[in-house]
Amino acid sequence: MNLYEKSLKMHEELKGIYEIVSKVDVNNKEELSLAYSPGVAAPCLAIQEDKANVYKYTAKGNMVAVITDGSAILGLGNIGPEAGLPVMESKVILYKELAGIDSFPICLATQDTEEIIKTIKYLTPSFGAIHLEDLACPKCIEVETRLREELDIPVFHNDQHGTSVAALAGLINALKLVNKTFENIKVVINGAEAAGSAIAKLLNEMGTTNILIVSHDEILNRTDNEKYDFSKKYLSEISNPENIKGTLREAMVGADVFIGVSTANVVDKDMVKSMGEDAIVFAMANPTPEIMPEDALAAGAKIVGTGRGDYPNQLNNVIAYPGIFKGALESRATKITEEMKMAAAHAIANLVTPEELTVDHIIPASFDRRVVRAIADEVVKIAKEQGIARV
Amino acid sequence: MNLYEKSLKMHEELKGIYEIVSKVDVNNKEELSLAYSPGVAAPCLAIQEDKANVYKYTAKGNMVAVITDGSAILGLGNIGPEAGLPVMESKVILYKELAGIDSFPICLATQDTEEIIKTIKYLTPSFGAIHLEDLACPKCIEVETRLREELDIPVFHNDQHGTSVAALAGLINALKLVNKTFENIKVVINGAEAAGSAIAKLLNEMGTTNILIVSHDEILNRTDNEKYDFSKKYLSEISNPENIKGTLREAMVGADVFIGVSTANVVDKDMVKSMGEDAIVFAMANPTPEIMPEDALAAGAKIVGTGRGDYPNQLNNVIAYPGIFKGALESRATKITEEMKMAAAHAIANLVTPEELTVDHIIPASFDRRVVRAIADEVVKIAKEQGIARV
Repeated sequence: MNLYEKSLKMHEELKGIYEIVSKVDVNNKEELSLAYSPGVAAPCLAIQEDKANVYKYTAKGNMVAVITDGSAILGLGNIGPEAGLPVMESKVILYKELAGIDSFPICLATQDTEEIIKTIKYLTPSFGAIHLEDLACPKCIEVETRLREELDIPVFHNDQHGTSVAALAGLINALKLVNKTFENIKVVINGAEAAGSAIAKLLNEMGTTNILIVSHDEILNRTDNEKYDFSKKYLSEISNPENIKGTLREAMVGADVFIGVSTANVVDKDMVKSMGEDAIVFAMANPTPEIMPEDALAAGAKIVGTGRGDYPNQLNNVIAYPGIFKGALESRATKITEEMKMAAAHAIANLVTPEELTVDHIIPASFDRRVVRAIADEVVKIAKEQGIARV
Repeated sequence: MNLYEKSLKMHEELKGIYEIVSKVDVNNKEELSLAYSPGVAAPCLAIQEDKANVYKYTAKGNMVAVITDGSAILGLGNIGPEAGLPVMESKVILYKELAGIDSFPICLATQDTEEIIKTIKYLTPSFGAIHLEDLACPKCIEVETRLREELDIPVFHNDQHGTSVAALAGLINALKLVNKTFENIKVVINGAEAAGSAIAKLLNEMGTTNILIVSHDEILNRTDNEKYDFSKKYLSEISNPENIKGTLREAMVGADVFIGVSTANVVDKDMVKSMGEDAIVFAMANPTPEIMPEDALAAGAKIVGTGRGDYPNQLNNVIAYPGIFKGALESRATKITEEMKMAAAHAIANLVTPEELTVDHIIPASFDRRVVRAIADEVVKIAKEQGIARV
């Protein structure tokens, strides 16, 4: 039985890989009266008196909504909200197992931007934070931007920021191994959707200017950018300093770093061979990478990472989002900021000591329980510094 | 420390009386690859191929959304969605503890009928059934009616149907004790909102015609009914056969049964004294009944029930909804029907044997674990008979 067959069997046997568990017993009159009527009236009235008490007496403060509309599930595309549910359920168990955070998977039966925004606003009373997942771009950017403005709880689109933090953490350590700096590298990003756009922005902040962003085999450029959506237009303005045109194959010639956040098998060995010395290949498409690690290494890549858990160097948002939300919830921050994301990437990278750092170990394992605490401490610190912590 | 103080302390210590628990471990590369990327792609693709597979590979089939807009929380009124959250959380733990059903509390930050309907429709991919709770009337009737028409999963407004099933179950047994029949009793229902309207309809189906429904101290009647909302207008047409006008005090004179689903302390001892022989008083307002049981008994009532767990004869929807949903989910019924509700009431009543039946024991305890199975079996049977079962 291969991995996919095993997973299918597991999901069928469990019918949901998480469950709801009561922390209290209701086996007699006393217990029932305490947990339910009439006892439950007490926290209700306390919250009516002061709405902030909802954090004191309910699960809200540690509860994250993991929300998708099914429009961009993994690298599988617009497969719909029902088919997206297993991924949201997997995020839920990762939240609990890695960070002790409770969360719930919400798959919306609408893919309309305004309806998504409105629905999420209506859902906020039960939740301490909103985790957006697998929303197509550029809708994802508009949904997140609007909700960040209009809500007083953190809103975080994981495919943008979780993935970009993971990629940045990996790149910080990979560059140490090849003795290169962010300022002097040429980076090709394949994919100009959620993850690609967020990675480009973070690299900019790290000082990288020589970035080519490729979308549908076309290097984003300012000559043709009238036809782009607002997000790609913006990306064409912060990348491609020489304003060249070309394909992914052409983009990759001489590149120091390839970051794929696109679809399976779009990179071949020749493309890797054409890259510069000590090439770094982050083939992060899920479930199937842009090029399989064995092929990338055979073609001369020095360091290879993927989004998967069954190869070395898992560059996946799972390393980032549990800790970021942990810190945001603990500090009851109103926002997750750029500074928190940068600090998270450094916190992750710093967990790999100089002695441990090798081409097969540029990032801690996703199940390494130290990661969440390290990130969360940074996030709490920054929330306080930025004056957006509420406890 | 009284019950309310104890409850407040418990809620503060637990910060949420339920939690999300993973059924799988993610402690190493293999486990992570199975539960998350790449393994999770397998159930996604299987559901994309056939949407019905969402029942096979996810938690949907055993997952209920417990939804309120905070407009009619317990007997406390429109205290808002945040203040309603503790009640929804209590429903969630009762679902799990009593019926093994997973559920999640959703408190909507809108009280607009159309917005509530639309939002709930958008939420359906993650849920096997919709449990509406503590919505004000007549909105509750419109929301439920529309969703029942437009969705293919069960939609059930608990304050209407859970409460009416509990009241009916209690009344079936109470009438046995006083040797009266549904056809020959005079019933006063105080409260013409969700519960009151549903109880009146169920009593009608049981053959009771002499019903007076009192709302805001006025007996609903057909002389004044132009000023009523559509629900109260309908109620005035199925009750009050002599079309009399009057107050609650006047209505209660000579009544065999008083059913209160209204607010605290609206009934005094004199009103109970004015009732007929062997009076039955169901003072079901939560958390404080229309009259305290000790007072009703002192005033001559023969049988007294409340909605609370700390007095005998708890007539509370908690006895009904876990079993009804259990049967609906097990049969994957598209609807919860009138016949299912009637059968549920009889199943509950039948669990009290003739030997056990006393004025202090007309209904099983809410935590009696036999109740759910007894109801669920009936519901599954009827779903099959009615051709609305899908497994």
